[in-house]
Amino acid sequence: MDIREELTKMKADAPLVASSSVELRNSALLNMAEALKASKDEIFAANAIDLDNGEKTGVSPAVMKRLLFNEAKLNDCIEGITQLVSLDDPVGKKELVRKLDSDLLLEKVTCPIGIIGVIFEARPDALVQISSLCIKSGNCAVLKGGKETVNTNRVLFRIILDACIEAGLPETVLLQAETHNEIDELLSCNEQVDLLIPRGSNEFVAYIMENTKIPVLGHADGICHIYVHEKADMGIVPSVLVDAKTQYAAACNAVETILVDRKIAKDALPVMAKALKEAGVVLRGDDEVRDIVEMDGLTERGYCEYLDLAASVKLVDGIDEAIAHINRYGSHHTDCILTEDTEARELFMERVDSAGVYCNCSTRFADGFRYGFGAEVGISTGKIHARGPVGLTGLVTYKYRLYGNGNIVGDYASGKRTFDFEDLEG
Amino acid sequence: MDIREELTKMKADAPLVASSSVELRNSALLNMAEALKASKDEIFAANAIDLDNGEKTGVSPAVMKRLLFNEAKLNDCIEGITQLVSLDDPVGKKELVRKLDSDLLLEKVTCPIGIIGVIFEARPDALVQISSLCIKSGNCAVLKGGKETVNTNRVLFRIILDACIEAGLPETVLLQAETHNEIDELLSCNEQVDLLIPRGSNEFVAYIMENTKIPVLGHADGICHIYVHEKADMGIVPSVLVDAKTQYAAACNAVETILVDRKIAKDALPVMAKALKEAGVVLRGDDEVRDIVEMDGLTERGYCEYLDLAASVKLVDGIDEAIAHINRYGSHHTDCILTEDTEARELFMERVDSAGVYCNCSTRFADGFRYGFGAEVGISTGKIHARGPVGLTGLVTYKYRLYGNGNIVGDYASGKRTFDFEDLEG
Repeated sequence: MDIREELTKMKADAPLVASSSVELRNSALLNMAEALKASKDEIFAANAIDLDNGEKTGVSPAVMKRLLFNEAKLNDCIEGITQLVSLDDPVGKKELVRKLDSDLLLEKVTCPIGIIGVIFEARPDALVQISSLCIKSGNCAVLKGGKETVNTNRVLFRIILDACIEAGLPETVLLQAETHNEIDELLSCNEQVDLLIPRGSNEFVAYIMENTKIPVLGHADGICHIYVHEKADMGIVPSVLVDAKTQYAAACNAVETILVDRKIAKDALPVMAKALKEAGVVLRGDDEVRDIVEMDGLTERGYCEYLDLAASVKLVDGIDEAIAHINRYGSHHTDCILTEDTEARELFMERVDSAGVYCNCSTRFADGFRYGFGAEVGISTGKIHARGPVGLTGLVTYKYRLYGNGNIVGDYASGKRTFDFEDLEG
Repeated sequence: MDIREELTKMKADAPLVASSSVELRNSALLNMAEALKASKDEIFAANAIDLDNGEKTGVSPAVMKRLLFNEAKLNDCIEGITQLVSLDDPVGKKELVRKLDSDLLLEKVTCPIGIIGVIFEARPDALVQISSLCIKSGNCAVLKGGKETVNTNRVLFRIILDACIEAGLPETVLLQAETHNEIDELLSCNEQVDLLIPRGSNEFVAYIMENTKIPVLGHADGICHIYVHEKADMGIVPSVLVDAKTQYAAACNAVETILVDRKIAKDALPVMAKALKEAGVVLRGDDEVRDIVEMDGLTERGYCEYLDLAASVKLVDGIDEAIAHINRYGSHHTDCILTEDTEARELFMERVDSAGVYCNCSTRFADGFRYGFGAEVGISTGKIHARGPVGLTGLVTYKYRLYGNGNIVGDYASGKRTFDFEDLEG
């Protein structure tokens, strides 16, 4: 059976999963946590094969690190699942209850999206994390992992699916796609799959966004900016910049371009550059910047995403130019102004067209955990559906339920009856 | 200047529109209403040319009716704008205010989406309605109308844009695309346009959905079902069916397929068929149905959307088959069960995967006005972003604002500081 046929079966069963009780979904999660704990030797053995294959085929050390599924990662997964059980049910929340008339009741109720497609590169822990989020939110999921972790994924998938079936969910609730050519077939299943969540490199996510008609939740680039305004408190500038760049340089929310107000550049730039250089950051700028502080020139990629201990520096003539630069060259992810001026701050907050607009703190705060959302599905730079760090709420939509008593529109059109709106909730 | 360059300029100015005060946006709307009233002779003269051209080129009577922009339609437009002024500002609503720590405040605030692309066929009133909704919600808009109303649209557009400029909005707030080849160019502007709203025939909307990477808010088909359950109250069945089919047969929320429980078919079908036939409805069914009541056979299009005084009838073995049929062959728009059985009702409400799930009332209630949303942008069958009838809220997204005091992630990662979440709102 090919993946499209499997997904057609899944779609037929999705309403069963969507209407399952939260108790059933939680018991699937608890089964999952139990089974992962009980099967750890089997998981680690499968992972050892993947690691061995990775070494033989010369996989890079950075990827090898993500392939590794050890006791610590297993414990994180189990803790994540346990936390998920304790969270409120995201399904069935009434966002609006409105009487349209004495005997006509409208409810806007959250419900699962349906089928989530999850495509991820090396990390086996992403398989566990995202499938457990899908189960909690009443969705079915099709999971496509990277070939580097095929053995680990296969074991994890079987454990997770068995745990779901044991709890009473249909066996169609989760599907694993293993072979590489299934990616393109999956991307073409826009009749079946409601939402795609890719997790991996920029190129990987960009490829997916370019090659499917299914809505994609995520982000390709993360070109975050910090704008040092003329009224910035120089007491916090160096530490915020160093944190935003070095706390985890490869993250999507690390700063990549530092904009400095031309008015303060002569004094501020040397202080900032010193702190960043001491933290191991390579700075790059145009001639004007390099006239003030010695640094490398820009590469041909310009004001790009480095994902490394490197950042571009650019001078701007005030806040308007800063905002225009960010909106034009940024990736609408997270951008920050450092200033003590309330007016400048609010202008920046209003006019920067990004999922996160910050003042006087590190861009690294853009993260579901740090926002208090619990587990994170991903960070979205799209404006349609969920934006920014996305938790469980990104996996539900809503439907309108209307309860009547034989009501017909003709009566309201003719004036025989009139609407009498009354909001009971929401 | 081609449309992509114009839209690039619009995108640069969109933050100015997004951060404009609601007073300014309302005054643009009031100017608009005034100017439309004052310019009615000019509008009707332009419309007369379009009507004249329409007659000469043999435009169908149905389209001619939609081309017409008369006193009644003008008054509806002006009343719509006036109502819009009185609605709350959809921008700047705080959906969440959370302290992450004593000096770190997170706000989730609604904001305009940015640039809305509106593509509509014949109706000039749609131009006025949707551009006023875009202005109220702080968005820029590019408008592409049909060639049949080019003269009317040109006059309306100039009046509306002048009203916006007079209020203080930049002249880039609205753009009119006139020539036909601009549609395809517009569909390719996914870097500039954030959301497309098509208004027109199914084929027209389907073409747009197939040929763009821009998210589309709308629906192509509207294959709505009414399922007559074995425990339906036969006192309401005929009138609900007649209303759902005949109150406005060409609407997307008119019923197209009637599913009848096999257990009650022998008794119920003749009663239903009599009422529908008396209302002028042509029924079509398979041999089993035609054994009970005389009617036409199905066409080769099967259980299709007729958009006319016609409906398909099909027998089903209980609620599971009804739900499976609706989810498989429906268009996820609006579907209804007629039953006095609470359990069947809730199963239907839970498992039918549609924007609207109804019990004991006509499908024709699926409409923004009837839901009490005020003006309607459109009805969405998508599950990502807005679903069902969409009012002003479908034209906003949100951003996260984070206000700090020099906060760095390193302090929280090292344990020097810990998050102390406290929700103040939301």
